[in-house]
Amino acid sequence: MTNTRQHAAPPQPVTGRSQPRYAGVATFMKLPLIDAEDASGVDVGLVGVPWDGGTTNRPGARLGPREMRGASTQMRSYNDATGIEPYAIAACADLGDAPVNPLDFAGTLASIERFFASLRSQGVRPVTAGGDHLTTLPILRGLHAGTPVALVHFDAHSDTVDRQFGVSPLGHGTVFRRAVEEALIDPARSITVGLRGGSYAADALDWTRERGFRLVFAEEAHELGPRRLVEEVRRRVGDGPAYVTFDIDCLDPAFAPGTGTPEIGGLTTLDAQIMVRGLTGLDVVGADVVEVAPPLDPSGLTTLTGATFMWELLCVVAEASRRAQT
Amino acid sequence: MTNTRQHAAPPQPVTGRSQPRYAGVATFMKLPLIDAEDASGVDVGLVGVPWDGGTTNRPGARLGPREMRGASTQMRSYNDATGIEPYAIAACADLGDAPVNPLDFAGTLASIERFFASLRSQGVRPVTAGGDHLTTLPILRGLHAGTPVALVHFDAHSDTVDRQFGVSPLGHGTVFRRAVEEALIDPARSITVGLRGGSYAADALDWTRERGFRLVFAEEAHELGPRRLVEEVRRRVGDGPAYVTFDIDCLDPAFAPGTGTPEIGGLTTLDAQIMVRGLTGLDVVGADVVEVAPPLDPSGLTTLTGATFMWELLCVVAEASRRAQT
Amino acid sequence: MTNTRQHAAPPQPVTGRSQPRYAGVATFMKLPLIDAEDASGVDVGLVGVPWDGGTTNRPGARLGPREMRGASTQMRSYNDATGIEPYAIAACADLGDAPVNPLDFAGTLASIERFFASLRSQGVRPVTAGGDHLTTLPILRGLHAGTPVALVHFDAHSDTVDRQFGVSPLGHGTVFRRAVEEALIDPARSITVGLRGGSYAADALDWTRERGFRLVFAEEAHELGPRRLVEEVRRRVGDGPAYVTFDIDCLDPAFAPGTGTPEIGGLTTLDAQIMVRGLTGLDVVGADVVEVAPPLDPSGLTTLTGATFMWELLCVVAEASRRAQT
Amino acid sequence: MTNTRQHAAPPQPVTGRSQPRYAGVATFMKLPLIDAEDASGVDVGLVGVPWDGGTTNRPGARLGPREMRGASTQMRSYNDATGIEPYAIAACADLGDAPVNPLDFAGTLASIERFFASLRSQGVRPVTAGGDHLTTLPILRGLHAGTPVALVHFDAHSDTVDRQFGVSPLGHGTVFRRAVEEALIDPARSITVGLRGGSYAADALDWTRERGFRLVFAEEAHELGPRRLVEEVRRRVGDGPAYVTFDIDCLDPAFAPGTGTPEIGGLTTLDAQIMVRGLTGLDVVGADVVEVAPPLDPSGLTTLTGATFMWELLCVVAEASRRAQT
Amino acid sequence: MTNTRQHAAPPQPVTGRSQPRYAGVATFMKLPLIDAEDASGVDVGLVGVPWDGGTTNRPGARLGPREMRGASTQMRSYNDATGIEPYAIAACADLGDAPVNPLDFAGTLASIERFFASLRSQGVRPVTAGGDHLTTLPILRGLHAGTPVALVHFDAHSDTVDRQFGVSPLGHGTVFRRAVEEALIDPARSITVGLRGGSYAADALDWTRERGFRLVFAEEAHELGPRRLVEEVRRRVGDGPAYVTFDIDCLDPAFAPGTGTPEIGGLTTLDAQIMVRGLTGLDVVGADVVEVAPPLDPSGLTTLTGATFMWELLCVVAEASRRAQT
Amino acid sequence: MTNTRQHAAPPQPVTGRSQPRYAGVATFMKLPLIDAEDASGVDVGLVGVPWDGGTTNRPGARLGPREMRGASTQMRSYNDATGIEPYAIAACADLGDAPVNPLDFAGTLASIERFFASLRSQGVRPVTAGGDHLTTLPILRGLHAGTPVALVHFDAHSDTVDRQFGVSPLGHGTVFRRAVEEALIDPARSITVGLRGGSYAADALDWTRERGFRLVFAEEAHELGPRRLVEEVRRRVGDGPAYVTFDIDCLDPAFAPGTGTPEIGGLTTLDAQIMVRGLTGLDVVGADVVEVAPPLDPSGLTTLTGATFMWELLCVVAEASRRAQT
Repeated sequence: MTNTRQHAAPPQPVTGRSQPRYAGVATFMKLPLIDAEDASGVDVGLVGVPWDGGTTNRPGARLGPREMRGASTQMRSYNDATGIEPYAIAACADLGDAPVNPLDFAGTLASIERFFASLRSQGVRPVTAGGDHLTTLPILRGLHAGTPVALVHFDAHSDTVDRQFGVSPLGHGTVFRRAVEEALIDPARSITVGLRGGSYAADALDWTRERGFRLVFAEEAHELGPRRLVEEVRRRVGDGPAYVTFDIDCLDPAFAPGTGTPEIGGLTTLDAQIMVRGLTGLDVVGADVVEVAPPLDPSGLTTLTGATFMWELLCVVAEASRRAQT
Repeated sequence: MTNTRQHAAPPQPVTGRSQPRYAGVATFMKLPLIDAEDASGVDVGLVGVPWDGGTTNRPGARLGPREMRGASTQMRSYNDATGIEPYAIAACADLGDAPVNPLDFAGTLASIERFFASLRSQGVRPVTAGGDHLTTLPILRGLHAGTPVALVHFDAHSDTVDRQFGVSPLGHGTVFRRAVEEALIDPARSITVGLRGGSYAADALDWTRERGFRLVFAEEAHELGPRRLVEEVRRRVGDGPAYVTFDIDCLDPAFAPGTGTPEIGGLTTLDAQIMVRGLTGLDVVGADVVEVAPPLDPSGLTTLTGATFMWELLCVVAEASRRAQT
Repeated sequence: MTNTRQHAAPPQPVTGRSQPRYAGVATFMKLPLIDAEDASGVDVGLVGVPWDGGTTNRPGARLGPREMRGASTQMRSYNDATGIEPYAIAACADLGDAPVNPLDFAGTLASIERFFASLRSQGVRPVTAGGDHLTTLPILRGLHAGTPVALVHFDAHSDTVDRQFGVSPLGHGTVFRRAVEEALIDPARSITVGLRGGSYAADALDWTRERGFRLVFAEEAHELGPRRLVEEVRRRVGDGPAYVTFDIDCLDPAFAPGTGTPEIGGLTTLDAQIMVRGLTGLDVVGADVVEVAPPLDPSGLTTLTGATFMWELLCVVAEASRRAQT
Repeated sequence: MTNTRQHAAPPQPVTGRSQPRYAGVATFMKLPLIDAEDASGVDVGLVGVPWDGGTTNRPGARLGPREMRGASTQMRSYNDATGIEPYAIAACADLGDAPVNPLDFAGTLASIERFFASLRSQGVRPVTAGGDHLTTLPILRGLHAGTPVALVHFDAHSDTVDRQFGVSPLGHGTVFRRAVEEALIDPARSITVGLRGGSYAADALDWTRERGFRLVFAEEAHELGPRRLVEEVRRRVGDGPAYVTFDIDCLDPAFAPGTGTPEIGGLTTLDAQIMVRGLTGLDVVGADVVEVAPPLDPSGLTTLTGATFMWELLCVVAEASRRAQT
Repeated sequence: MTNTRQHAAPPQPVTGRSQPRYAGVATFMKLPLIDAEDASGVDVGLVGVPWDGGTTNRPGARLGPREMRGASTQMRSYNDATGIEPYAIAACADLGDAPVNPLDFAGTLASIERFFASLRSQGVRPVTAGGDHLTTLPILRGLHAGTPVALVHFDAHSDTVDRQFGVSPLGHGTVFRRAVEEALIDPARSITVGLRGGSYAADALDWTRERGFRLVFAEEAHELGPRRLVEEVRRRVGDGPAYVTFDIDCLDPAFAPGTGTPEIGGLTTLDAQIMVRGLTGLDVVGADVVEVAPPLDPSGLTTLTGATFMWELLCVVAEASRRAQT
Repeated sequence: MTNTRQHAAPPQPVTGRSQPRYAGVATFMKLPLIDAEDASGVDVGLVGVPWDGGTTNRPGARLGPREMRGASTQMRSYNDATGIEPYAIAACADLGDAPVNPLDFAGTLASIERFFASLRSQGVRPVTAGGDHLTTLPILRGLHAGTPVALVHFDAHSDTVDRQFGVSPLGHGTVFRRAVEEALIDPARSITVGLRGGSYAADALDWTRERGFRLVFAEEAHELGPRRLVEEVRRRVGDGPAYVTFDIDCLDPAFAPGTGTPEIGGLTTLDAQIMVRGLTGLDVVGADVVEVAPPLDPSGLTTLTGATFMWELLCVVAEASRRAQT
């Protein structure tokens, strides 16, 4: 029984009830691997973007998809906390990796965008394993359907710098400045949670606030608690489409050390899980987990954490997909 | 001054006041090593069960006793939080490892049971270093004195599955289903704290609740807080005998990454310590720390944590032993 | 272009010329994954056996197939040293993992045997990633075609003990004693290279020599050099069928630390590569790489080494397959 | 643009806006390196003391300054939480390491003291990277200006033992007993936060309390919360001079595993950051971060955490320096 | 005594006879750090190029200079094997890092070239810490003085591919194809030692041989031995200028696991040292050590090895510099 | 059956034939632990000296005995290469650790000396696990019986410096200078094998040669080969008493990375094993393995290697003991 054949009924993962979780080929969640160009029956597509060309600090996120596939085989099929069984309510599959060329910055941005545009045209909602955070820009471009989406953004950094090293407009620290400028996201419906770590100056944060973003520093997040915070997120986002981007460095590095720019004093995984689960019911059109850098993760904890947030997001997106179809 | 000779007065550990803690042979807590077959003067026996034959996921817990012995040499003799000095109130010793054969599943279950039955017959209360969680089944069998005990169970998983891989009745995920069926434990006086991580279906949890178990998910544990929770534990357990089993994966993997099936979003060590200390005064007839897998623990943190919970449990059990004798 | 679809022409791996090697789903060598029960067109099947139930020392080899699949994506398609291009001369594929149940010792031995018997009946020559060395016993049983094969055995240990722990006839240290007794291998045509590390007594080695095995200690191997040694191997094996088993602990632990029972003073990878390449032209009906234990391998070197020897063996077996068809 | 030349205006670090943070020579915060003997224009000096001669348990803290310099290059220049920009309000520089000789215990104590006495005479407030905690004794001696300072002490241990191994008056566990005896610190204005982990007996804590110290165990710290606690600190310290010593083991080892004597159940980094930031406005004449042991820190998290607390303390001390000058 | 001030006599490193090697700021070899733009008195400049933009496989080499500076502090001042004392015969200094921008591929190639052109114009012979192997291309361009140099190339790979991923002309696998085309190196006087690891096809090696390169596979290198091989190198290079490039992956990964594309079966460090030392007397105008990737090097062995080869090359280059001046 | 009781017949280790090697309390070789003060029946004593007070570079060797005890449980009882069964020919036991105080340099030197003098007076030949190399000085003093012994010295460094940091006469780099001056060893019968790594000047080596030592650099050792070299050792040592000191850094760091001052280009374990075995028949009165630093050894390879050389030396010393008694 392998995890590679076509599906008639919604595809099901190879379950840990029939094969040990450490066995077999590691697709995302042990779901079937389906060609992304022929994914019309798929509701939720798990995708890798093995690219860290936007990284200005320590690299390694290009290895995230490979390792998160491995760790994702530890996931099960029923979410105790929310009662969601994604594979029962949506056709889910591993759609492989977007094409990348680490030597071709502009070409890779374009090919990622095309890949996600194709998914959008096929009606697939993607849950993506990055890659660094610049990855989210071509994803947003590819998924863009005319209306800016709300951005639900978990991150230690606002990623709204204008120029990196004073000159470069495209990097993992500029991605949401560009996304606002390109009207891919709607700042008034958007929120960033987990900020901390210092700045070179106050300007990027000022710019972001002026555009209407809600910025929640880690300290405030801790004091408000995840339940009140997620209510605020839901009020801001409302009924319109939303995209959730989960930079693993929103978490305290005790929970996720393996990332290029860790900042101490961050979120706990439990608080972040409560917030992500609290997004259930929003019209989430896509989501990603980025900045998991396996070479910086000797215990494998970060990779496991990344894969678990993919699972939590998969549940949210599957539920959104189901509602959209009814 | 070595830690191997017989004792007249209660045996005392080699103290860090006379020898550096990293020096000397690593017995549990640097206590004397005494033959388990001739342990009649011992009140509390520290024991290893180096076996992970029940593991269905990543192995390594068989190496737990060796490494926890090493880390336990960091422990001291006075518990600041509870005021207990175990070596002053109970005769404590390292009783070595239960006999195991990694190639003989049934035979090892039997030899572990015999080992603990012998301890019971000698009046020794054991504090055990596993091993995987299946280890607890032959311990409970060996300690069984006719009456089911209350189970105080810290774990990310309920371990009450009926069959693993659809066929196997004995594994580290079935242990408490078997223990209930064999009337080794009394579900109505039992509780599991720290659950999370998803399921393949809701059936195992339903079965467990129907038997009368109290199931506390990590999220609820976090909200209730350890003090209120431990009051509930004490109310349930009452005056009768109790066994405490501490699966290290009850803790968040930030605090204990080195275990075979880690689940993010777990307990903190401080909350778990407060709960374990809160068991003081119960009639705890034995306890264990299981699922510490040193090969998955590059920083050694998990092993240290396991050894520290052995120390906390030792204080609780020594106090129970003292009360039983007066 | 994904690596999962059926093939008309000989299946080809996803090449590093079109996708970075760290990208995409990690099948063996990035070859297509084909159902082992429908593998009749396949000449050489790459297979995992994620089982370490025969391990008497430190576990972890059950995780070998998963991690060796990951490392195997670093391999290329042309063997500079021998000029062999396996994918041009044989239909090669990843056939997934043999079914295992870590809780069912006897059942797993039987299911592995059936898996390999099915491959034999379909005309597939397997190159297997273990698993511990006991894995080789059901493989030899499954491949057995009536005539004992020559065993070309690279190992620090002879694995010809009679009983482990004095009682157990089946473990990773008894496998070739059983294989001789069952007439699966022909000692007179067999050879073990890389022995060292001490014994509990001389009896196992004596028994082995008496059966006709040629035993080459690491020290002698170093002095003879790999070229003379491989000539001797070829003379012994002759024209008949041979099976090659490569226990990664034949290598010095500087080259392969991540294994359960490492012994210092072993072979270098270069010498072992020269010997394996020197087997080209023999009628190798199957091969394996066993005892790679990823949790004991912090740098990943052992996993890479295991995957590279799978590649070297794949070249030898593909060539044998080609000759058998002409 | 290198980070080694003399400065006219307050020296500025090489900023991550002009050079990647992983590039260039790793001075503290990428500040200029200035000769400590000619530091008269410097307000706040960042200093290393690469010595762990007082360590009675696992060594390695002598390597702290080298590695914390590396991690400190991740720091930025603007403290989002407090609004302080240290390089705008004080002349800051890396002053190199105090001279040490690991073979000369008494000589090193003397040379460290002389080094800090020289800084004091030049008007420099030091922020030091240890080294083990005994380092703080010669620092306090060197900085001593006639009046005992308040000690703000973050630590899992009180470090007020009288004799180590029953005989040794000078070690990392006796440092504040000696400092009280030598009237370097004023117990009535001092406080220790984060205590836990057990004792050999109650005597050291009793002695400490009797001298007037306020002792806050980790459990109490968690319950009070950092804001109430820091108010208490401020009340105790008042307007007089204070010295802040931050033993990294005050933190839970999930946040800082790489230290010689870790104790589970400690502070979170966020709580500790809130407390350190809350010291802003006190007359902090010096500060240190000690017991970071890089060889025990495979993920680098502890070193990053140590460097971040140096940054937080630098902000506090720079602000104290600015006020002192106006 | 710090390592940052100007020098009158040839600059000398801070010696391990006066300060422990783990103490102080980590410049290369603990030499003074001098501004590269004002380096006219320097004979041999130690330089970092923290850039891995040419990497097509696992990244991390951008972190090489930082970590090799740290490991280089273990080096001493007298080469026992050759009798060379570089600091007595040449003015040596750390000249900092070439300017890089990880987001600007073309711009970084240009700025590296300018940096080395400036060194050439100031008469400095550089010994560089990469960075990935593409780094060597702008170095060769910057050092180019009209005549092609002989290339002495230690590497597992020929790095003479024409296009990476079929399209990209500039990557760490194309560098010497471009260098030949640009007449920066003279193939007829050049040699590559340590090749192995397989290809996608034979074409790149054929092209290289046809241009006149001598290609020595690891197996041949092992059989010839380093002394005979270095004689051949010397004969080929002759009296003209030579550049030595040392890709750390020439070594077997047992000796240097921390690199992006390791290949088993490589050179030993001792053989490589004998060969590098054997270059003494050639007119070596510059040298580099590339592809050291610290995140892939948990034991630090690779970084130490890289720093040691920088030291060995420094001795060779210092001697060449001395002869050039007499 | 535990490994702690007294013995009538020669004590035997707990064998891996009855208990898995990873089980039980880790004494050296799983031999009984006997009080060193009452060891008169013991021929060969295995001893730890957990002290690294002489270390001038990276610390950690104080943790060597603890970890080498753990790794030594992997050893067996029959030496295949030499045919020696030490437990059949000599009474062997673990005698615990010599008393040390890391805060008391002079006191520890004295207490180690007394410990070994006591062993000598009881007729015990010690095989010691250090500790750093300074440990060997008080051992030689304690064992000194009036006549200087031959020193068989495996090391990357000669350890014959006069003063460390220009002032300190006692450190791990001065030990054999002191030993010569105190007439503990006879240079004319002594030899050092494995030297390399550079110097600050030629003087220490010159002094050593002038005293009559034979110095063998790693390169020469590689060329001569272990068999010829060991013949030379035997000729030099002759019939008189000899002490063997094995600094783990004699080995190449590929084989033993976990040591404070590694030097690339060293011996292989196989060559070193051949040399150590070749000492069989000499009158070896004691031996040690020093400078194993577990915190610098993430894979555990160095500790295993250290324990294996203790086993090889145990065989040599047991055989010497047997001959001395006949």
